Amino acid sequence: MTSKPKKVVLAYSGGLDTSIILKWLQTEYGAEVVTFTADLGQGEEVEPARRKAELLGIRPENIFIEDLREEFVRDYVFPMFRANTVYEGQYLLGTSIARPLIAKRQIEIARAVGADAVCHGATGKGNDQVRFELGYYALEPDIRVVAPWREWDFASREQLLDFAEKHQIPIAKDKRGEAPFSVDANLLHSSSEGKVLEDPALEAPEYVHQRTISPEDAPDRPTVIEIAFEKGDPVAIDGETLSPAALLARLNQLGHDNGIGRLDLVENRFVGMKSRGVYETPGGTILLAAHRGIESITLDGGAMHLKDEMMPRYAKLIYNGFWFSPEREMLQALIDKSQENVTGTARVKLYKGNATVIGRESPLSLYDQDLVTFEEGTGGYDQRDAAGFIRLNALRLRIEARRRTRLGPDGA
Amino acid sequence: MTSKPKKVVLAYSGGLDTSIILKWLQTEYGAEVVTFTADLGQGEEVEPARRKAELLGIRPENIFIEDLREEFVRDYVFPMFRANTVYEGQYLLGTSIARPLIAKRQIEIARAVGADAVCHGATGKGNDQVRFELGYYALEPDIRVVAPWREWDFASREQLLDFAEKHQIPIAKDKRGEAPFSVDANLLHSSSEGKVLEDPALEAPEYVHQRTISPEDAPDRPTVIEIAFEKGDPVAIDGETLSPAALLARLNQLGHDNGIGRLDLVENRFVGMKSRGVYETPGGTILLAAHRGIESITLDGGAMHLKDEMMPRYAKLIYNGFWFSPEREMLQALIDKSQENVTGTARVKLYKGNATVIGRESPLSLYDQDLVTFEEGTGGYDQRDAAGFIRLNALRLRIEARRRTRLGPDGA
Amino acid sequence: MTSKPKKVVLAYSGGLDTSIILKWLQTEYGAEVVTFTADLGQGEEVEPARRKAELLGIRPENIFIEDLREEFVRDYVFPMFRANTVYEGQYLLGTSIARPLIAKRQIEIARAVGADAVCHGATGKGNDQVRFELGYYALEPDIRVVAPWREWDFASREQLLDFAEKHQIPIAKDKRGEAPFSVDANLLHSSSEGKVLEDPALEAPEYVHQRTISPEDAPDRPTVIEIAFEKGDPVAIDGETLSPAALLARLNQLGHDNGIGRLDLVENRFVGMKSRGVYETPGGTILLAAHRGIESITLDGGAMHLKDEMMPRYAKLIYNGFWFSPEREMLQALIDKSQENVTGTARVKLYKGNATVIGRESPLSLYDQDLVTFEEGTGGYDQRDAAGFIRLNALRLRIEARRRTRLGPDGA
Amino acid sequence: MTSKPKKVVLAYSGGLDTSIILKWLQTEYGAEVVTFTADLGQGEEVEPARRKAELLGIRPENIFIEDLREEFVRDYVFPMFRANTVYEGQYLLGTSIARPLIAKRQIEIARAVGADAVCHGATGKGNDQVRFELGYYALEPDIRVVAPWREWDFASREQLLDFAEKHQIPIAKDKRGEAPFSVDANLLHSSSEGKVLEDPALEAPEYVHQRTISPEDAPDRPTVIEIAFEKGDPVAIDGETLSPAALLARLNQLGHDNGIGRLDLVENRFVGMKSRGVYETPGGTILLAAHRGIESITLDGGAMHLKDEMMPRYAKLIYNGFWFSPEREMLQALIDKSQENVTGTARVKLYKGNATVIGRESPLSLYDQDLVTFEEGTGGYDQRDAAGFIRLNALRLRIEARRRTRLGPDGA
Repeated sequence: MTSKPKKVVLAYSGGLDTSIILKWLQTEYGAEVVTFTADLGQGEEVEPARRKAELLGIRPENIFIEDLREEFVRDYVFPMFRANTVYEGQYLLGTSIARPLIAKRQIEIARAVGADAVCHGATGKGNDQVRFELGYYALEPDIRVVAPWREWDFASREQLLDFAEKHQIPIAKDKRGEAPFSVDANLLHSSSEGKVLEDPALEAPEYVHQRTISPEDAPDRPTVIEIAFEKGDPVAIDGETLSPAALLARLNQLGHDNGIGRLDLVENRFVGMKSRGVYETPGGTILLAAHRGIESITLDGGAMHLKDEMMPRYAKLIYNGFWFSPEREMLQALIDKSQENVTGTARVKLYKGNATVIGRESPLSLYDQDLVTFEEGTGGYDQRDAAGFIRLNALRLRIEARRRTRLGPDGA
Repeated sequence: MTSKPKKVVLAYSGGLDTSIILKWLQTEYGAEVVTFTADLGQGEEVEPARRKAELLGIRPENIFIEDLREEFVRDYVFPMFRANTVYEGQYLLGTSIARPLIAKRQIEIARAVGADAVCHGATGKGNDQVRFELGYYALEPDIRVVAPWREWDFASREQLLDFAEKHQIPIAKDKRGEAPFSVDANLLHSSSEGKVLEDPALEAPEYVHQRTISPEDAPDRPTVIEIAFEKGDPVAIDGETLSPAALLARLNQLGHDNGIGRLDLVENRFVGMKSRGVYETPGGTILLAAHRGIESITLDGGAMHLKDEMMPRYAKLIYNGFWFSPEREMLQALIDKSQENVTGTARVKLYKGNATVIGRESPLSLYDQDLVTFEEGTGGYDQRDAAGFIRLNALRLRIEARRRTRLGPDGA
Repeated sequence: MTSKPKKVVLAYSGGLDTSIILKWLQTEYGAEVVTFTADLGQGEEVEPARRKAELLGIRPENIFIEDLREEFVRDYVFPMFRANTVYEGQYLLGTSIARPLIAKRQIEIARAVGADAVCHGATGKGNDQVRFELGYYALEPDIRVVAPWREWDFASREQLLDFAEKHQIPIAKDKRGEAPFSVDANLLHSSSEGKVLEDPALEAPEYVHQRTISPEDAPDRPTVIEIAFEKGDPVAIDGETLSPAALLARLNQLGHDNGIGRLDLVENRFVGMKSRGVYETPGGTILLAAHRGIESITLDGGAMHLKDEMMPRYAKLIYNGFWFSPEREMLQALIDKSQENVTGTARVKLYKGNATVIGRESPLSLYDQDLVTFEEGTGGYDQRDAAGFIRLNALRLRIEARRRTRLGPDGA
Repeated sequence: MTSKPKKVVLAYSGGLDTSIILKWLQTEYGAEVVTFTADLGQGEEVEPARRKAELLGIRPENIFIEDLREEFVRDYVFPMFRANTVYEGQYLLGTSIARPLIAKRQIEIARAVGADAVCHGATGKGNDQVRFELGYYALEPDIRVVAPWREWDFASREQLLDFAEKHQIPIAKDKRGEAPFSVDANLLHSSSEGKVLEDPALEAPEYVHQRTISPEDAPDRPTVIEIAFEKGDPVAIDGETLSPAALLARLNQLGHDNGIGRLDLVENRFVGMKSRGVYETPGGTILLAAHRGIESITLDGGAMHLKDEMMPRYAKLIYNGFWFSPEREMLQALIDKSQENVTGTARVKLYKGNATVIGRESPLSLYDQDLVTFEEGTGGYDQRDAAGFIRLNALRLRIEARRRTRLGPDGA
């Protein structure tokens, strides 16, 4: 860990912080820097990052700018939604799920350009450093990882800005003071943390929200949409087949307009502390409801219960950064196996913060109206079977009750 | 199983169906019938059941009418909510949780009056028969259970009504035709099933809802309330200490008025079929959100994750009728242990179907602003620790990655 | 369920009981009987069943006799052993795992010969009826199932024998009286139950054992063998590649000779009662030890722990008869995914009841001597990393401890 | 973390390594050292540690020597055995379970003497450092932890010995060269690791074993003992009531004499590497078998299955050092709840490495011979109930099978 990195692939946003890191890598280590800027749907142009990198002296062949939106949604977001994944009962893991893909591309670029190190801009208190670095190590075990926020000696934001100024890094006027909160965003969600959000007793101010209007501001009329699924993944909205990223973007717009997907929670970080975040996952929130809806008629009960019991563990693995781990892949195999017949259409009503499934149908439905009807149907269900079913399920309880009786009222 | 019951404690609502059962027990078995009518907050008067029972020839000492609302909420609903219990990701188990208490009281009454049998009015296709009877058997292993719907020979509703008429059981005019759906209700929820709801592709009609106005009809202004918890249970609303039943009733009113707690889902019954139900759990939906909110700052992360992983199994036990089972009690011990410090206040915003936690505070909070702040705090967190933390978490992934490298690009 | 079966595929052993069933199917229902006799390695010739069936009037084209040993071991036993499966901590599921295959072949034969029913000889108190019938229904949902032991009116063994005599079914002399215990056997194990074993306080008599000599009678010298695995399945013993059935047979012989694989336990049946069985699984016991041995160096820790936590549930599914269920297949996908690199050799010492792994090696080993050595190695492990690892793992415990301190010594 | 410790409570064995640590604490930090030496049944006298500490300049009031054997077995070993705890399918956690108690006493002594720091002698590659330190932090969150092996600059054993010599620490002649393996021991087990054991392909040499004779050397005649349990804990052997420590010591002797409890395995350390250990747990191995035996007749099936599924997670918590964590305590509450009726006697045969349960009886037995007998008993079991039980269990499988049929043979 003590050798200097020679050539570093930096996850570069083009913003002030990663620009400082870029320059710090050059000055601290004399390293050749390769920048990697990905469009994951964060909602900002990525091309400006090219110009900024060039201004900071990066050679053109060392600037990588890629649109990863389709890969992100297809290979990361959708597989995760197959499990109805939520962390701690609520969080849709919008930040967590993006990190493995960035890490993977950094490693691939490092191999392509012959870099010996990779670098990210995550701080030393958060989960993202873990997610990046577990990804790096799982894919390239002997890579040199540079984590500037844990390594450099800047003791304050002021010192950082001095460094930036000294190295002619442009500082937007509004960055002079500190932002009132920090943001991460991609096609699945945006998150806001810190500063004005640090007291969990206080309501998050309206202005931290970026992806949704408030339910109060949403239209007074519901919007109803139909989402079609094939093998557990959404493929069309209202009959229009869409690519993964296009579909999620469409859902995001619908969610945005109807005030759907806001979440304000205190969560447990992998590094051991509680933190408060405000998340907005408009499309994901609709997708989760719809997926549960289509599963409800196409997935066997035993399969569903197994999935539901596995989900918290699967969510924790993703949250903690173990996407590229054997156990996440094992759970994915289990989940994917369950989705083979999760095909059909869910109808969802969107209204002022609510995404409510109001109908579901499928050629592969396991719902059998003949069975369930109050009239004696033709589904082959004999009510008298229930007597035996109950009596054998009760047998061990009865045996235990007889023991209690033997023991007397006070169990002694 | 073949002997005739002599004295039967019947779970008696006073309605047409259980009145027919009452009469059928008398005529089929010549049994002495003891009626038990409980107020669980279903929203109907229970005293009329006394008069009806008397009309059907039940002696006064054989008529039991009880208000169980406080016991229901305190000993069944609240313990269940400690686990943030939902079945199949969504259902708050409003029907399931009421059955064990009814079964328990029937058995206690059977002991008190010397009855040899108990009887319920649940059909042979549903979960409730299982829940009643597992309860009976677990508490009194050799009780004789009578389940008329599985036993009698009536082949149609018409025949039932003929029987009623023949025995002077009053039939309300609107019962002549069949109800467009069937209802169960208690202080936690109401459920609607059957008939007009049997096609899961079709939206549930507005008129099946009973406990809530629709979000669209709810006020345009949010209502904000504060719910105080002690050791995992709610104890006060907006500073006013309330008994369990009074508190839940208050939340129900608030939920009702704000269109909160509607659920339309297809679920997997224990007896093996899928069914569609519309549930309304206004107070419970608010309570679940608030409980998660107060847990988020007072419950350790490891404890929370363990609870979350156990929850689906706990929910399934309750849904399937195993409340009085050793394994439910074991899980309850685990859950209750976790709630010792779940004390504090959650602030919840109610608005058109949404129950959103917007603030939480507690003298026992584990949230530490000093730790989480972006500024270097005094909480004793050294960012450099994260490097070692990550590297050891990564170690096994790196070893596995090296194996892949040894194996070559195609893993062979 | 009330129509008479016309053509029935009977799981026929050729023994007295299934011969009685055969004749009963003919006389009770006038059904055409198709016999299916499988060699699953039970240790008896199957060809004699042909002659017996013919004697009882079965037409040659209705007699199916098959050697299923390879399929049994390859597709049922080995997949199960990939999970190190034991039920209730001990039972290797030797009976349970054979039932699905028999059920599957019965259904396939029923389709081939146009039969409308299948029939087995399992009693109404055991697990096997469940395993057979869940298999039937899962593969052919509308098949008619005949379970004579639950259906016929014979009230005693005497009546059964009278029926046999009346229908010229040969009765071996020693069957006149009742057997002192009942037996099931296949290539994986033999089981003994009932009669002399019914008091769990009493030691099982030596004579119930069939597949093993007692440890006391085994040789005074250990035998050491090497078992090679590929992707989780054993493929060779002492360098000799063997087919699945041949390999298991070889292990059975080795286990037999060294008194390995006896188990005397009280287990919980799916139908709700406890029963006592004596099982002998000589080869399986060796295989389990060896498989754990090779996994110990080739399987990642996270993968192993996930497998270990899933195992009891997987075992229960097999025990309860849910082999052909979505959730068993999901778990199998998870398990199989984990086995991709479980390749290598385990050395096992066999000695008087003990099967002890004494060495394991693999080209895919994850064990790294450089890492683990007490000397500072070159494996890239920096002991100082452990400090950060521990401190962040401790962080939430410290925060909780500080809360206790705030609360004072009595937590109030 | 940077301040110097002033007064340190050292876990002191009296051996060379912890004596070096003692002196290093004095010389490196100028710290006042308090020694704590516990008798956990490691089999060495603890009083000599007093003299050694005095020789190294420790004041009498700073020397703590305690016999913790009863507390160790009663409050740590027995609770763990209630869960039938094994790590990775095999390891009885003999080392892991001793660490929390040592940590707890060190913290209590630190409070009593006003020390600001604690210190242990575990290396930086193992699990024990984690177990000690998580214990320290969980009980005293702001304690200063000194871990010399991770902190000092000695680069080789040679340098350590030079330091010892320089400070007049006596070095036993046989310590001049390095030990061929390292040992940990307490009343539950002994472990051997390192050096001659580092190649997992090679059999462990006989001389590493300390607590057992080899099965080959054990008597040719079995020994049969009876172990009585109350509420899950053993209380008597062959009718003689014994204290926890005396009982475990007795079992150890019996296990030793019969070659029981040896284990040679490769395990996954919490710090991410695989290591090979040889463990001897003679009494514990017998106890595990006996406990399973008594549970088999006194514990409900549902309770047992829940326990069995929780066990791997519970084992992992103990292995990883989380004894003093909320989630371990929650699991303990669940486990303890299950043990209320685990009372009775198991008879165990000990013979050349085997500990085999051959009989179990209990006044609280759930085993019901009437139910299980092949004869129709009086236990209230109606074989015909099984038909309904099976049909409802099969229902969802049949519905799924019908879907497959609808889809056609190729599922399309």
